[in-house]
Amino acid sequence: MRKILIIGAGKSSSYLIKYLIDKSPSENLEITIGDLNVDNAKKLVGNSSKINIIHLDVFDADSRSTAIKSADIVISMLPARFHIEVAKDCITYKKHMVTASYISEEMQNLDDDAKANGLIFMNEIGVDPGIDHMSAMQVIDQIRDKGGKMILFESFTGGLVAPESDNNLWNYKFTWNPRNVVVAGQGGAAKFLQENQFKYIPYDRLFRRTEFLDIDGYGRFEAYANRDSLKYQHVYGLDHARTLYRGTMRRVGFSRAWHVFVQLGMTDDSYTIEDSANMSYRDFVNAFLPYSPTDSVELKFRHALKIDQDDMVWDKFLELDIFNAEKMVELDKATPAQILQKILMDSWTLSEDDKDMIVMYHKFGYELNGEKHQIDATMVVVGEDQTYTAMAKTVGLPVAMATLAILNGKIKTPGVQIPITKEVYTPILDELETYGVVFNEKEVPYLGYNPLNA
Amino acid sequence: MRKILIIGAGKSSSYLIKYLIDKSPSENLEITIGDLNVDNAKKLVGNSSKINIIHLDVFDADSRSTAIKSADIVISMLPARFHIEVAKDCITYKKHMVTASYISEEMQNLDDDAKANGLIFMNEIGVDPGIDHMSAMQVIDQIRDKGGKMILFESFTGGLVAPESDNNLWNYKFTWNPRNVVVAGQGGAAKFLQENQFKYIPYDRLFRRTEFLDIDGYGRFEAYANRDSLKYQHVYGLDHARTLYRGTMRRVGFSRAWHVFVQLGMTDDSYTIEDSANMSYRDFVNAFLPYSPTDSVELKFRHALKIDQDDMVWDKFLELDIFNAEKMVELDKATPAQILQKILMDSWTLSEDDKDMIVMYHKFGYELNGEKHQIDATMVVVGEDQTYTAMAKTVGLPVAMATLAILNGKIKTPGVQIPITKEVYTPILDELETYGVVFNEKEVPYLGYNPLNA
Repeated sequence: MRKILIIGAGKSSSYLIKYLIDKSPSENLEITIGDLNVDNAKKLVGNSSKINIIHLDVFDADSRSTAIKSADIVISMLPARFHIEVAKDCITYKKHMVTASYISEEMQNLDDDAKANGLIFMNEIGVDPGIDHMSAMQVIDQIRDKGGKMILFESFTGGLVAPESDNNLWNYKFTWNPRNVVVAGQGGAAKFLQENQFKYIPYDRLFRRTEFLDIDGYGRFEAYANRDSLKYQHVYGLDHARTLYRGTMRRVGFSRAWHVFVQLGMTDDSYTIEDSANMSYRDFVNAFLPYSPTDSVELKFRHALKIDQDDMVWDKFLELDIFNAEKMVELDKATPAQILQKILMDSWTLSEDDKDMIVMYHKFGYELNGEKHQIDATMVVVGEDQTYTAMAKTVGLPVAMATLAILNGKIKTPGVQIPITKEVYTPILDELETYGVVFNEKEVPYLGYNPLNA
Repeated sequence: MRKILIIGAGKSSSYLIKYLIDKSPSENLEITIGDLNVDNAKKLVGNSSKINIIHLDVFDADSRSTAIKSADIVISMLPARFHIEVAKDCITYKKHMVTASYISEEMQNLDDDAKANGLIFMNEIGVDPGIDHMSAMQVIDQIRDKGGKMILFESFTGGLVAPESDNNLWNYKFTWNPRNVVVAGQGGAAKFLQENQFKYIPYDRLFRRTEFLDIDGYGRFEAYANRDSLKYQHVYGLDHARTLYRGTMRRVGFSRAWHVFVQLGMTDDSYTIEDSANMSYRDFVNAFLPYSPTDSVELKFRHALKIDQDDMVWDKFLELDIFNAEKMVELDKATPAQILQKILMDSWTLSEDDKDMIVMYHKFGYELNGEKHQIDATMVVVGEDQTYTAMAKTVGLPVAMATLAILNGKIKTPGVQIPITKEVYTPILDELETYGVVFNEKEVPYLGYNPLNA
């Protein structure tokens, strides 16, 4: 029996656990799930009595090391900041490790130790990061293998509500941590490369500098720039690309309306509002508008944000009920971002039978034999329900597949790594296709941004 | 002889040194000036051979304590973060101390020690903070003494160019640390109180939420809100005021144009621009605008910021020459704020014969015998030249006067303090008047912001 320890059985582990349970007879797996709270694990495991579920506090060194010692490989589905304790034990007890999180500096520092012990520490193998790396590198490697030279790479991902559950004016619901959505884009200007020019977009312009993307059968989306589009430039081997852009996808119109919250200061998470608990939603909005003894909050809002009488964006705000003088914030010492999150959660929380959707869009521009070409690749995954979400599927399946591939010796190269080599991405992308995670590639005319270069 | 040690003889110490030299025969003063660089001190002292000028590194504990030990009182004109070493020595050697800086937490923590040793540590006794405290508290105390109840307090200060030297379209030149001007307003939302409502203005709206102020003989100014208008609420005894606002004054039109830089992200000091040294001013502007192979930077700028063809604000940007493709940034690894500062210094640096100006405006609203009243108090000080500036005068004279008042036992109360008691402000404001630092008070109709309360 090969022993797999899964630490953390939260929202995104449903498919991961189901996949491994399904494979356990043929693959001879003994699965242990450890979590602080075992309820979700029990629900996910259901009647599979062969799965061990243990109470595990990752900060309790004794029980953590005991659990890790007796496993062959460890999957950490904890929040990223908790991986490092697990990773250190994995070095000590010589266990492989898999996470879906970005490699932290502390994790990267274990690279030498992992290599010295022949251990594979696979990270960033969820959806974004994860499937984006694998699907991008597969096409980039194909282009290179036929002698092409990459000149443009753009990559966009969005976690959205599925069309069949899309019934609000923002065409958006929270399918992931709402807090991350409210503070998205903060912390510094977005930086990207366009036709060899570095471009910078400050937070207060970010949601007005969107571009449109169309996916066959799913219509039009928009995307705003991520903080650092150049993060993987070197890792992907794109040092000579003229254009590099990474972005986040929303349905058209979301960003322009969101920009209003940004401008008013409602997404600020750096200070608390006085007496927030006793404010109405209307009071909250009014705190960001000039004082008037007579003018309505609505008119002050329209005036401050230059929203014309006939601007459709207005209905988006009405729908959120932000002018309601009866609904109370009821959060003590809350930041604007926390209050806005609460208001949005009233409207944007998924219902029991709502489905989520993950969308991804890559653009690959390249030169081959003196001609310029472009391949666009798109992926859409729709969830089944609130347990088997598209998010859980696209995060959990690659993690699970990588775990088996490591156990089966198909992934061999040791070290702290991300899934950008053929060894890793080829089998996983192939298997993902059988689960409906499919990229549609099509050749399109190379546009770039400068006709002189096209 | 009473021995005064002045540490730091920078830009703002000209009047301080001149005042003390003038007083030294009648007041029996022995003055020592210590600085890392003694050149400016030598220039300021001129032929006064009786002044000791010593080379002093405030981080060299030996020479610092030797200098402090042999003084009766120490004035620190160093940047605020350097005061604390001096202050600790002043406790050790039982010396009084005077600074024009905000009280840091470390300084405040010396309060018990200062009191136990009968030492006066006077801080915030420059112009802002300083003259603002004193002039405000004098009027507030007068209102209270006649039984009035404060309901509104607004206070505005500006360091500007004098009308006779005001010859650019921004009506602004750097009369103080340019860096502080470029990053002004950053670091969190501005918070104030208006008719008992807390109001918050994020940085990206700050320069559009200005109000106008008129000063007789000097025309119209505008003011944007300071970070924390409530900072002195309790200290001034204004716990029941309905309106509290502190702001920074500029000439009309400055803020609306400055807002353009904020929106583009040019005031950001948190990251560096790629290859900044080899950029032209035009490249710098273009880095914040969408890519186009054909459209001009000028039109992209107008379009992004919605600047109409006939908008007068346009000439302000032309005047700064920000679209010049020949002028180079020449700053390595520079932040946007650093580059913008360089561009502005080309245009906004005071010439040899330019004069600066300090303006201050207080509004006091109060209730007396069931009636509402308002007093507006304004102060304007114009500099003589680039050494004897209005800034140096309004910072240095109160420091110097407080120093003498402490030596002469007119200020008696020990402890870490700011100048808000009659003991301190009455003699200093009286003496400042003889130097032309005069507040004009006038009664005006109480406006407030709500006619129902007026």
